[in-house]
Amino acid sequence: MGRAVVVQINSNYLKLKAGYLFPEIARRVKDFSAANPEASLIRLGIGDVTEPLPAACREAMKQAVDAMGRRESFHGYGPEQGYLWLREAIASNDFQARGCAISAEEIFVSDGSKCDSSNILDILGEGIRIAVTDPVYPVYVDSNVMAGRTGEADETGRYAGLTYLPITAANGFCAPLPEGPVDLIYLCFPNNPTGAVASREQLQRWVDYALANQALILFDAAYEAFIRDPELPHSIYEIEGAKRCAIEFRSFSKNAGFTGTRCALTVVPRGLMGVGADGQEVELWSLWNRRQSTKFNGVSYIVQRGAEAVYSSEGQAQVKELVNFYMENAAILRRDLSRAGLRVFGGEQAPYVWIQTPEGVDSWSFFDRLLSEAHVVGTPGSGFGAAGEGYFRLSAFNSRANVAEAMERIAQSSLAVSNKVAI
Amino acid sequence: MGRAVVVQINSNYLKLKAGYLFPEIARRVKDFSAANPEASLIRLGIGDVTEPLPAACREAMKQAVDAMGRRESFHGYGPEQGYLWLREAIASNDFQARGCAISAEEIFVSDGSKCDSSNILDILGEGIRIAVTDPVYPVYVDSNVMAGRTGEADETGRYAGLTYLPITAANGFCAPLPEGPVDLIYLCFPNNPTGAVASREQLQRWVDYALANQALILFDAAYEAFIRDPELPHSIYEIEGAKRCAIEFRSFSKNAGFTGTRCALTVVPRGLMGVGADGQEVELWSLWNRRQSTKFNGVSYIVQRGAEAVYSSEGQAQVKELVNFYMENAAILRRDLSRAGLRVFGGEQAPYVWIQTPEGVDSWSFFDRLLSEAHVVGTPGSGFGAAGEGYFRLSAFNSRANVAEAMERIAQSSLAVSNKVAI
Repeated sequence: MGRAVVVQINSNYLKLKAGYLFPEIARRVKDFSAANPEASLIRLGIGDVTEPLPAACREAMKQAVDAMGRRESFHGYGPEQGYLWLREAIASNDFQARGCAISAEEIFVSDGSKCDSSNILDILGEGIRIAVTDPVYPVYVDSNVMAGRTGEADETGRYAGLTYLPITAANGFCAPLPEGPVDLIYLCFPNNPTGAVASREQLQRWVDYALANQALILFDAAYEAFIRDPELPHSIYEIEGAKRCAIEFRSFSKNAGFTGTRCALTVVPRGLMGVGADGQEVELWSLWNRRQSTKFNGVSYIVQRGAEAVYSSEGQAQVKELVNFYMENAAILRRDLSRAGLRVFGGEQAPYVWIQTPEGVDSWSFFDRLLSEAHVVGTPGSGFGAAGEGYFRLSAFNSRANVAEAMERIAQSSLAVSNKVAI
Repeated sequence: MGRAVVVQINSNYLKLKAGYLFPEIARRVKDFSAANPEASLIRLGIGDVTEPLPAACREAMKQAVDAMGRRESFHGYGPEQGYLWLREAIASNDFQARGCAISAEEIFVSDGSKCDSSNILDILGEGIRIAVTDPVYPVYVDSNVMAGRTGEADETGRYAGLTYLPITAANGFCAPLPEGPVDLIYLCFPNNPTGAVASREQLQRWVDYALANQALILFDAAYEAFIRDPELPHSIYEIEGAKRCAIEFRSFSKNAGFTGTRCALTVVPRGLMGVGADGQEVELWSLWNRRQSTKFNGVSYIVQRGAEAVYSSEGQAQVKELVNFYMENAAILRRDLSRAGLRVFGGEQAPYVWIQTPEGVDSWSFFDRLLSEAHVVGTPGSGFGAAGEGYFRLSAFNSRANVAEAMERIAQSSLAVSNKVAI
């Protein structure tokens, strides 16, 4: 019969670090729970929502399920790009209402920003040079490693060939422009993991850089709903020139609680150009349209109806309430962690609080102590990149009771470095 | 401000033929409809289902939506691989019940077989040699073109570097084994587009070939539910040795009518090995698991509950009824087209009937005459590959009334080549 088949694999996968952040966290939590079965853990680690889906979305989805039960309103294959009614609602509410000239045809509905921000690499050239911030959402890096756009990782976890732009307290979590030439830049605002935001001027500086240097910006706006300051831009397309240099990712995961329901979108403006090896210019829109038509089959009709309901007046009110709820959590995190003597960043326009760990305590030690002393799970900053060492992320996605309880436990722990604990 | 950004693109996209099959059909249909607004078209073209979702699936999804409205039963991010309860139901019902030693951990739930059969290429080596049948489901070819595993297309649409295995009436739509060495073979049974099926012996011959030649089989079983003959295998894993050389794709699209609801699965057996450029052996399971964890976020909880209901006793009965309904359509297609003097294949274990076009009528001429004379939309065989020239596909996915009406119109048309038209 012959031996088992041994087909050639994509060897770039072998460059990936085995200890991916979240599995490593899961392993340590599991070990701790096994040793301490009585401990009641509070999870403020991954950015997963906890509150029920908005009623408007649920109602719309139940109606959609009913529609699928009648021959005359049954929906089979939909457009790979998403239904026009959803794309129009998105274009109108999320973009045109903010003065961005984005049309429905420039919106591609998908099942997740993680997928889109990875899959977009399919349409780009092999040899392009990539810049990411450090710390950074790991998927931006790993998807490039898998696609062969990096060399091996060094002992700090940085991959050869990538340009890392450090964001730390020293530069106000505002990445410096790349020193060498790059072709692709990932920006995420409000930022995951640091919770930092970008002003209009800061984004303009990026757009100007991109246009001057022929670089494409991938702008991840998954957390835009958490922006409170009316002066701050929600979309890169609020910036002059951005339609000529940027692709934007959005999601229903965090505003409407769709992490388990799955709906997102990518904006690829018409007229945004790429160039082939033979010098032929081609719209990135056409390439992405072809990519999605060939390798994707659209989002569930039922889920798209749920996403559409986000834009109804009830939906808008319910989403606002959800966002307010999580942002009150963030304010509590900021206040109580500060009172405990910890230096905190973010959490004002984003659902993440970025803690500077106390002198002499590295990110993973902070993780272990928080877990063992307070039974609270967070995310070590160093897991997001070498420059995240000495930081720690807590998420505002949890119930009020859990957030309050977590803060009380931290105040009682050895991680509380000041005496300003009392309420 | 600089000119618009022009980033390097993946030039392989430029090799893709502009006139992709289904858009070209849509264009001709649109032109015809514009010129003949009164014509009532019957679409037997793409393989999209038309009948309502099974009640068991709808009921389960509505319960899942309700669960998402309560904090204690809310579901955020699920496992990227799918919920264990669904993976276990699949493993038990679709595989173990047929004697296949496939476990839940070898099942990866996804949003579509089109996605999976494209995305699986991510984990394979750049230089592997690919064999496809001709005619073939276009996605297998196009996804390889995009990934740079082919050269340019010739005037018949065949891409340099691919091995095409012709399947025609002359060989009973049973592909010959490749003559030269190949590393990856796509097999689809019941076959899209020809409706042919493979016997146990035929599949054993492929598995033996794969094991002897170190080739990986990608087995697309999206239409397995339509198999009526109890002697025929539904899964490649019913064949001795297949776990060591094959990955299988399945879908809820055609059995349970999920084309607009979106759920599918891929089986990657443990112990199926690949080899890196440095000679390191690694399980394909680990690579696919890493790929899905990094670039995918799992299927909607609501949809997974709907898919699980397919395996309830009510769900099984309802799916059986749906499949029977479409297969009765297929039988009517076969009977009436034969009576009209056309030579037909398939349609006995598959929802597709593969028509040999009359002498002197090529596939696109048949399409145009069917459209203009009978107002029926089908799919030209040549669109699936050069060896599909002289054939035409009709799908059994429509209402009984539409199928009967389409057959009557064809019988009255110039395409009816015999006088055996009478009922």
